[in-house]
Amino acid sequence: MANFDMMRRLARDEGGKIILLVLDGLGGLPLEATGKTELETANTPNMDKLAGAGSLGAIVPVARGISPGSGPAHLALFGYDPIQFDIGRGVLSAFGVGMDVQWNDVMARGNFATLDENGIVTDRRAGRISTEEAEKRLDVLRSIEIPGVTITLKAEKEYRFVLHVRGEGLSGHVADTDPQVTGEPMQKAVPTSEEPAAQFTADIINQWVGKAVQALKGYEPANGVLLRGVAMDPNLPKYNDVYRLKAACVAVYPMYKGVSKLVGMTVIDTYDINEPQEEFEKVAGIWGDYDFIFCHVKRPDSLGEDGNFDGKAAYIEKVDAALPTLLNLNPDVLMITGDHSTPAKLRSHSWHPVPFLLHAPATTMPSGADHFGERICYKGPLGIFPSADIMPLALAHALRLDRYGA
Amino acid sequence: MANFDMMRRLARDEGGKIILLVLDGLGGLPLEATGKTELETANTPNMDKLAGAGSLGAIVPVARGISPGSGPAHLALFGYDPIQFDIGRGVLSAFGVGMDVQWNDVMARGNFATLDENGIVTDRRAGRISTEEAEKRLDVLRSIEIPGVTITLKAEKEYRFVLHVRGEGLSGHVADTDPQVTGEPMQKAVPTSEEPAAQFTADIINQWVGKAVQALKGYEPANGVLLRGVAMDPNLPKYNDVYRLKAACVAVYPMYKGVSKLVGMTVIDTYDINEPQEEFEKVAGIWGDYDFIFCHVKRPDSLGEDGNFDGKAAYIEKVDAALPTLLNLNPDVLMITGDHSTPAKLRSHSWHPVPFLLHAPATTMPSGADHFGERICYKGPLGIFPSADIMPLALAHALRLDRYGA
Repeated sequence: MANFDMMRRLARDEGGKIILLVLDGLGGLPLEATGKTELETANTPNMDKLAGAGSLGAIVPVARGISPGSGPAHLALFGYDPIQFDIGRGVLSAFGVGMDVQWNDVMARGNFATLDENGIVTDRRAGRISTEEAEKRLDVLRSIEIPGVTITLKAEKEYRFVLHVRGEGLSGHVADTDPQVTGEPMQKAVPTSEEPAAQFTADIINQWVGKAVQALKGYEPANGVLLRGVAMDPNLPKYNDVYRLKAACVAVYPMYKGVSKLVGMTVIDTYDINEPQEEFEKVAGIWGDYDFIFCHVKRPDSLGEDGNFDGKAAYIEKVDAALPTLLNLNPDVLMITGDHSTPAKLRSHSWHPVPFLLHAPATTMPSGADHFGERICYKGPLGIFPSADIMPLALAHALRLDRYGA
Repeated sequence: MANFDMMRRLARDEGGKIILLVLDGLGGLPLEATGKTELETANTPNMDKLAGAGSLGAIVPVARGISPGSGPAHLALFGYDPIQFDIGRGVLSAFGVGMDVQWNDVMARGNFATLDENGIVTDRRAGRISTEEAEKRLDVLRSIEIPGVTITLKAEKEYRFVLHVRGEGLSGHVADTDPQVTGEPMQKAVPTSEEPAAQFTADIINQWVGKAVQALKGYEPANGVLLRGVAMDPNLPKYNDVYRLKAACVAVYPMYKGVSKLVGMTVIDTYDINEPQEEFEKVAGIWGDYDFIFCHVKRPDSLGEDGNFDGKAAYIEKVDAALPTLLNLNPDVLMITGDHSTPAKLRSHSWHPVPFLLHAPATTMPSGADHFGERICYKGPLGIFPSADIMPLALAHALRLDRYGA
């Protein structure tokens, strides 16, 4: 895998323009042994043409057999080895719910939990209370004040929420308070590094948790809070520094905007936008201003998670029908892929390598394929390779990399 | 990737004989989407037969998307991870111009540059003066003497030259004097390690640069010198130690002889030789004396860089026609590949994986292919893999490796 030092050393300021189109959860499985996958079933004349003239391969988001979450899967697409860059859950959750994150804020992912009269955790998910029920309790917790910091809380889904702390001298080096098993009490927050800021932050968290448990008395089954993934913005290397790319993100869901922000992309306003056609028009609208545009289409993943095979195939067709709006921009490099597979058959993210299409008229080895699909991609000229390699590949095809060595 | 410790542990003293035939810049691209590459176009009956009976794959010299120089690309073929073994430019250049290099010499790559009256660099390449013009200035600089060391200068191409320093107590740990941008003065040479030898070497370089600038007064536009890649022989692990191979190099160009020397091959005299047929006869002539012969054919790369698609295809045919001279030796392992791709379409080295053919009658998985070409190699039984893995593979096919573990 090419590394960032090498990218920094080789990346040029000038070169071709790149589009990365991500159909979330694109990869699928056939429902029957003899059948076709969602993508193989979909009628996609535009992608099929691109598959023939362009190159094909398949990408592995994290490692063989590993089903990634959306955070690591997207980091990989952006060139960040998701094992090396293990972003704290708190940060991803904060971005996921669209919180305003500054570099010195600390965030944690919270669970409502059930405590018995002795303070022992009896249910780590508080009976999976609804988001509505969680909101009621968050309202109670919002009245808690801790001197020296500002605390913001936001519901995620069901029993999950995000704790966001802003103030001077904070640190992300604090262990989880979640004991991970029932039958144990909540853990005290303890620093995991020697720096005074870590002890200071642990103290603040312990004060807040203490007050929270007081305030939640009578709010069973959600009368406790467990915190995980305490973290600050990981200060990832940024696209303009590493790749010398002026990059933008066109995505509808906050999570994807968040990950894009982490790597230094400009997040384009997509208020009131929903359909692929509208997203692609947004891309066209900013085309002159950026070297690299990441465009994210969420629905194939959701439909896969719903087990809706036909719906997912139909949605892929809808994306294909809108493609000419991107093709008319004549990008030097167009990549079409997914962050991970979400086969309707499995109703969840999976580990299967994701079909990857790279169209770069000036520089690709044409695959000669007659369609875009999983199995033809597995045998494609690009082989099966880590997702984190698509960025060096894209830069190469955009003629944005100097030669390595004499 | 197999590593040298493993090779040292497993390599046997006995086994089959190996030929590595490198067609420099072998990999190509079709000129049109529907067309064939240079190699796919060439009529290569001998290679085609070997491709069918032998195994096929494709190799990645450095990393996906990275276009390598010839130095790192050959190091990779020889089994040295070119990222780990990042050989200083000075050493490669010195070998490239055929200088006599001893283990304790220090070398640097030089540029003639233009300085204004305040010593500010206004052109890092001195208007790209010709090699002839550079030679005139080198003659001036050859009169400079620095006590305690012997300095040798040799022209590379145009404004480039090699500075070679021989003496006691030198070090390669000295930073570039090239500011890398115009508008800045030349940098003083500074040591990059604590050892006294580094300071001593930096002092010598600064003395030499000072005298050089004095001597070049009036020689505008080439009145300054910038040095990069100060380095000593990296003392790479050697073929006989790591692989237990008595290895020889048959190459015409100094650069390739140089890299072969770095890894401990015996460099065969090729004075007056030019054609593949002559090189192969040279291989035949020394066949009894070596376990491993690296044979390098330069022209496909040069023709690719000239954008001469037909010429490159024709030259590949010429190599194919000469192949029987190698085949008559009945090597246990014959590998045919390139160091990198040089598609005529791109007129430069590229990142595309390089076709790799491995013919070992006793041990290969026959591909059943009907020709030798990029796309059939990408789908070959060996897959797409790092160039640095071909040596372990060759040793295995020559039955020169012990089993790993009980």
